[in-house]
Amino acid sequence: MTDIAMIEAAAARLKGHVLRTPLLSSPFLDEIAGRRLLVKAECLQHTGSFKARGAWSAVSALTPEVRAQGVLAYSSGNHAQGVARAAALQGAACVIVMPSDAPALKIANTKALGAEVVLYDRATENREEIGAALAAERGLTLVKPYDDPQVIAGQATTGLEIAEQAAEEGVTVAEVLVPCGGGGLTSGIALALEAKAPAMRVRPVEPEGFDDTTRSLASGSVVANDRLAGSICDAIITPRPGELTFPVQQRLSGPGLVVTEEEALRAMGLAFLRLKVVIEPGGAVALAAALFHGAELAADTAIAVASGGNVDPVLFARALATLDA
Amino acid sequence: MTDIAMIEAAAARLKGHVLRTPLLSSPFLDEIAGRRLLVKAECLQHTGSFKARGAWSAVSALTPEVRAQGVLAYSSGNHAQGVARAAALQGAACVIVMPSDAPALKIANTKALGAEVVLYDRATENREEIGAALAAERGLTLVKPYDDPQVIAGQATTGLEIAEQAAEEGVTVAEVLVPCGGGGLTSGIALALEAKAPAMRVRPVEPEGFDDTTRSLASGSVVANDRLAGSICDAIITPRPGELTFPVQQRLSGPGLVVTEEEALRAMGLAFLRLKVVIEPGGAVALAAALFHGAELAADTAIAVASGGNVDPVLFARALATLDA
Repeated sequence: MTDIAMIEAAAARLKGHVLRTPLLSSPFLDEIAGRRLLVKAECLQHTGSFKARGAWSAVSALTPEVRAQGVLAYSSGNHAQGVARAAALQGAACVIVMPSDAPALKIANTKALGAEVVLYDRATENREEIGAALAAERGLTLVKPYDDPQVIAGQATTGLEIAEQAAEEGVTVAEVLVPCGGGGLTSGIALALEAKAPAMRVRPVEPEGFDDTTRSLASGSVVANDRLAGSICDAIITPRPGELTFPVQQRLSGPGLVVTEEEALRAMGLAFLRLKVVIEPGGAVALAAALFHGAELAADTAIAVASGGNVDPVLFARALATLDA
Repeated sequence: MTDIAMIEAAAARLKGHVLRTPLLSSPFLDEIAGRRLLVKAECLQHTGSFKARGAWSAVSALTPEVRAQGVLAYSSGNHAQGVARAAALQGAACVIVMPSDAPALKIANTKALGAEVVLYDRATENREEIGAALAAERGLTLVKPYDDPQVIAGQATTGLEIAEQAAEEGVTVAEVLVPCGGGGLTSGIALALEAKAPAMRVRPVEPEGFDDTTRSLASGSVVANDRLAGSICDAIITPRPGELTFPVQQRLSGPGLVVTEEEALRAMGLAFLRLKVVIEPGGAVALAAALFHGAELAADTAIAVASGGNVDPVLFARALATLDA
């Protein structure tokens, strides 16, 4: 499993290939939050999300021979773009298996990043079977979205940067709020902070109705979401906590926080107004928790990770509309 | 006048107090630009614009005795917020003289940053007289928006960062496109690059109808704008090139580039989509030139400064609407 040596090795491989995203702040947001608030703007990362880190880590950890055969991922979203970019820039062929009803823009973006997109019919086909057949035929290596030690190590580099950048601001004690889907980013940051900023505590944040990790942490065993669709926070909706990620989260993070979609939209609007960054709904849940759930926090400083910015203009307009209220 | 020693001294004073803003990029924007394009995201700066740099430099350059008496600025926009923040965090009183018809949000923001706002009636009162009376009465020091060597030195720190960050990307030859109003940012960056990246050339960029610097550079002597209102790029509209800034621009920059308001809006939309940053119209003119005026550029790499992000949601919605086309 991922450890600090693996994380630091991933950071060395990522250097020059992913962005060291800034830690942003605004006195106006501090006032709303009722404490000092720092925002790790990972929405500015290449491909618009932290997924570029884990993908780069995983692809660069392969042996040259294996990498040359190519990689495969299942995703219609941020993971697809991260893997496509990492593969293209490291000279590996890349196949992304996507449902045929995925938005045309996401398919186009993934192709433009150099990937071959294989579409399947959600109703009649099984993506794992399609992927397994392709992998066997071409010798492709599957890059999982979160349950992979090297992917977790890549996401964890976000935590190394948080520890360094917060220390530059004089902050060593804080609650670090992280949008949580499968738990790759959350568990990775928790492992990095355990080694580099042990007085910081990770708090996973989820949207209402999709709070599998929060409930799993509270109950002490893995529980699943009742449904997997119908949230504007689609980027962080997964069936249940990961097999590798959950034990780390259980040891190092929690309790979880849960925000409404309306709170996520308001956080996006305030990030537009005060930080000048574009955050997608799923990426804004941690900022929303920091701004609107301060009573559930204890530390004088909150650090919220804005994990992605891939949002369409129509949905973003809904976030802007919250500023009128 | 400002020189590299003064710029480096300003950088030392600014350290820890202004953000080292990232250099962003996207393969999608490279494709539109027809060359490699790097974007210096100064819209992420504290107070939402580069003005925080010059203001910090000017206020911190005062002797403790003079600073303790307080500072004064005329501005309804980005300069006001920069000066208010710099004064508040350095323990100086701050008076901002603003027209009484300035937007309520700008007045509120400036007050929230700790400044005393003195309103005047544009039709019947003269702001210089009001300011001079206040300055004499209270011993306040005027912080000019651009025609001040220490303000120029502060803006120039943007250029020091561009030289360093571009070198990390392997770029030493480039055209550096800078939104140009009074010329403080343009001349400052040009002075920094003269010392640190002499193979880079600064190109001032202005909105159509307000191209005083472009015309002045072309004709060899200072010419004024015909009008001062009626542009969505209001943040970079000034009567004419500055007395200190123009000779620097004449020696080190040009020719100027001119973009339409529609091009600025389209650049804002693409920055939303591909970089996940919020840019105001005046701050987007350099990006617009890089994207849509490639035929007027020569270098293989363009670096566009996104100088500010203070745009209201209604205007931003117009930029998003350009993405439908």
